[in-house]
Amino acid sequence: MANVTKKVSWSSRDEGTGESAPLLNGAGKDSARYSSQCLNSSILGRLSAVDLDDQSNEDTETSCLKEIPHSEKLLSSKYESLDYDNSENQLFLEEERRMSSLEFRMLEISRWVVCALIGILTGLVACFIDIAVEQLAGVKYNVVKHSIDTFTEVGGLSISLILWAALNAAIVVVGAVMVAFFEPVAAGSGIPQIKCYLNGVKIPHVVRLKTLVIKVFGVISSVAGGLAVGKEGPMIHSGAVIAAGVSQGRSTSLKRDFKIFEYFRRDTEKRDFVSAGAAAGVSAAFGAPVGGVLFSLEEGASFWNQMLTWRIFFASMVSTFTLNFFLGIYHGKVGDLSNPGLINFGRFENEAMEYNIYEIPLFIFMGVMGGVLGAIFNTLNYWLTIFRIRYIHRPCLQVTEAVLVAAVTATVSFAMIYFSDDCQPLGENQAEYPLQLFCSDGEYNSMATAFFNTPEKSVRSLFHDPPGSYNPQTLGIFTLSYFLLAFWTYGLTVSAGVFIPSLLIGAAWGRLFGIFLASMTNGSIWADPGKYALIGAAAQLGGIVRMTLSLTVIMVEATGNVTYGLPIMLVLMTAKIIGDYFVEGLYDIHIKLQSVPFLHWEAPATSHALTAREVMSSPVTCFSRLEKVGNIVDVLSNATMNNNGFPVVSEFSASDEPGRLCGLVLRSQLIVLLKHKVFVERAHSSLIQRKLQMKDFRDAYPRFPPIQSIHVSQDERECMMDLSEFMNPTPYTVPQETSLPRVFKLFRALGLRHLVVVDEENRVMGLVTRKDLARYHLGKHGLEEMQISQT
Amino acid sequence: MANVTKKVSWSSRDEGTGESAPLLNGAGKDSARYSSQCLNSSILGRLSAVDLDDQSNEDTETSCLKEIPHSEKLLSSKYESLDYDNSENQLFLEEERRMSSLEFRMLEISRWVVCALIGILTGLVACFIDIAVEQLAGVKYNVVKHSIDTFTEVGGLSISLILWAALNAAIVVVGAVMVAFFEPVAAGSGIPQIKCYLNGVKIPHVVRLKTLVIKVFGVISSVAGGLAVGKEGPMIHSGAVIAAGVSQGRSTSLKRDFKIFEYFRRDTEKRDFVSAGAAAGVSAAFGAPVGGVLFSLEEGASFWNQMLTWRIFFASMVSTFTLNFFLGIYHGKVGDLSNPGLINFGRFENEAMEYNIYEIPLFIFMGVMGGVLGAIFNTLNYWLTIFRIRYIHRPCLQVTEAVLVAAVTATVSFAMIYFSDDCQPLGENQAEYPLQLFCSDGEYNSMATAFFNTPEKSVRSLFHDPPGSYNPQTLGIFTLSYFLLAFWTYGLTVSAGVFIPSLLIGAAWGRLFGIFLASMTNGSIWADPGKYALIGAAAQLGGIVRMTLSLTVIMVEATGNVTYGLPIMLVLMTAKIIGDYFVEGLYDIHIKLQSVPFLHWEAPATSHALTAREVMSSPVTCFSRLEKVGNIVDVLSNATMNNNGFPVVSEFSASDEPGRLCGLVLRSQLIVLLKHKVFVERAHSSLIQRKLQMKDFRDAYPRFPPIQSIHVSQDERECMMDLSEFMNPTPYTVPQETSLPRVFKLFRALGLRHLVVVDEENRVMGLVTRKDLARYHLGKHGLEEMQISQT
Repeated sequence: MANVTKKVSWSSRDEGTGESAPLLNGAGKDSARYSSQCLNSSILGRLSAVDLDDQSNEDTETSCLKEIPHSEKLLSSKYESLDYDNSENQLFLEEERRMSSLEFRMLEISRWVVCALIGILTGLVACFIDIAVEQLAGVKYNVVKHSIDTFTEVGGLSISLILWAALNAAIVVVGAVMVAFFEPVAAGSGIPQIKCYLNGVKIPHVVRLKTLVIKVFGVISSVAGGLAVGKEGPMIHSGAVIAAGVSQGRSTSLKRDFKIFEYFRRDTEKRDFVSAGAAAGVSAAFGAPVGGVLFSLEEGASFWNQMLTWRIFFASMVSTFTLNFFLGIYHGKVGDLSNPGLINFGRFENEAMEYNIYEIPLFIFMGVMGGVLGAIFNTLNYWLTIFRIRYIHRPCLQVTEAVLVAAVTATVSFAMIYFSDDCQPLGENQAEYPLQLFCSDGEYNSMATAFFNTPEKSVRSLFHDPPGSYNPQTLGIFTLSYFLLAFWTYGLTVSAGVFIPSLLIGAAWGRLFGIFLASMTNGSIWADPGKYALIGAAAQLGGIVRMTLSLTVIMVEATGNVTYGLPIMLVLMTAKIIGDYFVEGLYDIHIKLQSVPFLHWEAPATSHALTAREVMSSPVTCFSRLEKVGNIVDVLSNATMNNNGFPVVSEFSASDEPGRLCGLVLRSQLIVLLKHKVFVERAHSSLIQRKLQMKDFRDAYPRFPPIQSIHVSQDERECMMDLSEFMNPTPYTVPQETSLPRVFKLFRALGLRHLVVVDEENRVMGLVTRKDLARYHLGKHGLEEMQISQT
Repeated sequence: MANVTKKVSWSSRDEGTGESAPLLNGAGKDSARYSSQCLNSSILGRLSAVDLDDQSNEDTETSCLKEIPHSEKLLSSKYESLDYDNSENQLFLEEERRMSSLEFRMLEISRWVVCALIGILTGLVACFIDIAVEQLAGVKYNVVKHSIDTFTEVGGLSISLILWAALNAAIVVVGAVMVAFFEPVAAGSGIPQIKCYLNGVKIPHVVRLKTLVIKVFGVISSVAGGLAVGKEGPMIHSGAVIAAGVSQGRSTSLKRDFKIFEYFRRDTEKRDFVSAGAAAGVSAAFGAPVGGVLFSLEEGASFWNQMLTWRIFFASMVSTFTLNFFLGIYHGKVGDLSNPGLINFGRFENEAMEYNIYEIPLFIFMGVMGGVLGAIFNTLNYWLTIFRIRYIHRPCLQVTEAVLVAAVTATVSFAMIYFSDDCQPLGENQAEYPLQLFCSDGEYNSMATAFFNTPEKSVRSLFHDPPGSYNPQTLGIFTLSYFLLAFWTYGLTVSAGVFIPSLLIGAAWGRLFGIFLASMTNGSIWADPGKYALIGAAAQLGGIVRMTLSLTVIMVEATGNVTYGLPIMLVLMTAKIIGDYFVEGLYDIHIKLQSVPFLHWEAPATSHALTAREVMSSPVTCFSRLEKVGNIVDVLSNATMNNNGFPVVSEFSASDEPGRLCGLVLRSQLIVLLKHKVFVERAHSSLIQRKLQMKDFRDAYPRFPPIQSIHVSQDERECMMDLSEFMNPTPYTVPQETSLPRVFKLFRALGLRHLVVVDEENRVMGLVTRKDLARYHLGKHGLEEMQISQT
């Protein structure tokens, strides 16, 4: 099995050594340097006398974790969990108790304000992307069209081809360079990353401002560069980043703290806002506020809270409204509300678009097709991704691949248009850039409508162009070539979504199916190709991403017509059932390939035989209430024991008997305590010192310094630390006999990070973390256990 | 404070003593009789040698609980909780471990089958109600119309009035008698009851077959009887009952056991199906499958599970489809899918129906109006309900009131029509029963459209009739009178929903508002009264029921047009915010008036000062692993200590020291054990006897016999019972210092019934149940604690 550098993983590379970062097999010198660094830092850590600045240390630390395995049978231990369970320690409770009910109300209002801001900013970002893409693509297409129009008569269309390919490549290279060199986590649609975040896995850099900026410009470049991608998926990531940023009232990247929303500086609150941001993103992308809420719930939430849901809904609403409003102004129709999303499918209204009960089997058949094609797409992309992980991991290679794809896309498009002789009369519904090419005057090349356009507009044409606008061959060739381009494109090191390409592929074969039906039935009124294009689009998208309820609602909201609710549901369900039979959804595949310890909805059905005893990690490093500082520093510095939560026990009575649980303390809390030197000079004597506040913990959140950056002198090592006030005195516990499904349910429902396993006398026997639960999955031969890789 | 008999409560009366059941203040003789009965049964219980048949005992028991308080500051201890947390005892685990992954898959498939059945049956029931109402109302209106047409010329319209009133009363009395005398829990819309069920509160008889039958015929009678009610709310209850019945594979009422779906015979599984049933009900009522799913989630679910949601969605879809299909056949249009729900709002398509951005403030204003009017409606209904609880509690009085309301409704309608001189030309959009009355030939009375029709059709007329169909006075008077009728009607002892009357009121004033706007702006195109009727309907409904996300989606699905999504959301939000400022939603009011221990989404914000120590019930009755049968019988028979869960402790070492927790056993489990006499003859010796299976527990579910029905001889009292195998060895526990919000979160997220509070050595210190948590609420002066009434 090949190991790969962290380059191709979602985690960001460390800037300093980025370009020369090595592949394990074949770069001896570099890896030697790295391992010596690792060793070095670990020694430094053990001496606990390091006082370097944060950044360089972070680099050292991350570069030690540079290889990740590619196999989906592994879980990487490098991903940490988020704390979705509040640590209810004394400080926290005191603060909460001090707050009056008026203050709680103010807090509630500020939550609404934050959601409004999230909505507005997400809408604005979507608006910016839309306008930028339209302008840039407009310039490009005009230049190319001019060139083609010029050269068609005189010959020399190859120059036009080169021009087109060069333009595409030039635009794409900008985005690819940004993503590959500066923030690899901004690649792709970002939906898998947000899924992981909402699931409780910390993906490094995923909600940082820098990621947002690169994502936005990356999307503009890849869409304008003519790749087979959409700008809708990345909006979900963008919304999430905006939410994470706004809700914290500060930006670590910009080093600005606005001193607002300080209460929200913890994982629990932040997650709620990120859900809202993701929903606002969907809402802006598809004009689907309800769909956005459902997306957030389907992908992320485990606990449904009415007020939270409602706030998410509000953010979604504001987002689509903002987008609508500003796009209305941009299009010169102030006050017009017909642009609720980046894409809308146009209005389906004529009589022919109604469906009859006898069409339902046809829809189900299309669902089956969507499922099969989706599975093929996912499988191909899976192999391609493994290939990429193995061989295309250096940024320069990645950029090269992106440029290559851009050029190939242009070439394929050109070839399609060139060899197609499908001329259509220039009618009222004419294309935006009608290419005459070899058609006679007053006609245009219909293949050009599909290729010589942004994918959104192509989708709309396929839905709405009157019957007869496309000939079957054109559609067939288009489907095939776009299918191949799209599967090649997803996973490139550019910011790009897979929704629109999927819809486009589906719409193309759906329309083809509709034309086929119409010819079979001698053109009955019901076999409207536009209707079948819509159903095909739903089927294909469902077959690839495998979302159900949320996707149904998104599609219905995007079509603006509830009539299609039932067929879309049927088609999505069928596509999911068929697709799941073969292979997982695209996002899940990518999550698995990153070895993320992702917790699904339920424990595997046959896991009742396992109990907490088998699942837990044991023995556990515990601290006592009054612990020696040196001890704590040593434990925290020990790289092989990368724990983040430590049970606090009352006494170690007998040396071999574990102590009674009396709390749980987090690594991050200990770090803050060490940083503020909250030491008791001598054991049992207490010095007057500044009392730590929740604020101190919040200020350090979320980038707690590594232990190596904290200087602890030899004297201080002899001091004691009183953890009573800072530990969570009421961690959730389970007895050792608890079955895995029961542990899982508790873990998932409460969003836990650590669950202490105790015996009947409340002694600490072990600790269950996310990785302990995520490693069991139902394979072909019953329950299987995944390996946990240390890298 | 007045106490009232259980007559008016949701719990069903015991049949034997039904008619003469007394009011506490003023019926000395009866209450004496009752208390002696109570005493009697309690003595019998203590002797534990009773061997009466189940039914009579159940009666005795329930009749002891006949008085419930009316104040909303009380929690009634008579409501028990459902076990939404599986008792994972050895039997259960063994069964689960025996199951192969194929069996789990079969189980999953049978879940889908059950959901399909739920959908089909719910659709059929909805279809039956629709057709029955239409037929019955058709006959009635034709008779009355004939009479009016006859008497208009010759005078003697009072005969028509009497005929109409008598017909209405006659139809309504059937339903009222059924509900009042046979199943009081079938009264009203059933939504509050289903909310409670999904929340985890057991409302007696709420999901029984008898309730369904009475509900269905009750709805038909009250809608056909011309009351200001709808048939939509009751569909939700009907769907839930169907789900509870189908999923159990047997009917206790019919004494038939089909020996299928036995695995689903426990609260956890049943709840999931009931959610699906409720969703299917909404879906059939409004043609809103997505809305149905959201309704179920918003009202019930706390833990969102993707597969479950999807199954719920499937049931909803099947339900609307079935309804559509059969109504299509009924209307003679086989294969037409234009009847997705009992009500649909018709198509909103013309240009005038589009809205502009400057109308948004108007919509918000309408939301405010809806909120205020809704609050008035709820307050009036609250007072009326208290009046009813105090004075109208006997079934005959209840029936009389229902008849009175029916007659008054007819009279008011007649007076409205009679005194209105609003004649409209008979156009294409003519009413179904156009009353000419005093209008000239070729015209009809427009007030009659609103009153002389089922409310569903009136709503549709208000939405779609062209501008000018109604004059403002007509609408004003209609709004006022219908408002009063509707608030009087809700809470009557008939099966009836409040959705349609709310929509109708809102549509009327909304249309009025639209007409006003049009006249202000000299009839601009945008001020279409139909559009404002729709917004008004949403505002009024939102102001009364206060649902948010689900209601938005239901409205959007019912209009069949996504365009109105944004304004409907805005209006519903505004209406909720404004309405909540004054008074709770209608359903919550009724839940509170029943003193149900309902758990909201979160603990009150300012409750961090409370810990499990203060909240828990203590001391707790515990059993030891090997417990004397006599002890168990005594504890279970003790009526003052009506516990349902008992911690099992390892040993009572010192007499005053509580034992270490090693499990939790439920009353229902103990009852089954006692019934099967699972005794160990002498302590520490074990006899060979039939091993109990999960099946034995399932067979007894859900109507476990009362302890009084179990005969235990004096010899047997000396035997021991080994609880190890039957107790749940891994109950969830919390330390005493856990804050209330933390306890609440655990309880709510996992749907617990009992939560054991332990000290640091795992000794049982107390037990937290639903009532302990539900009694805290945020009043005007901070945190308030409700009293728990023993009755």
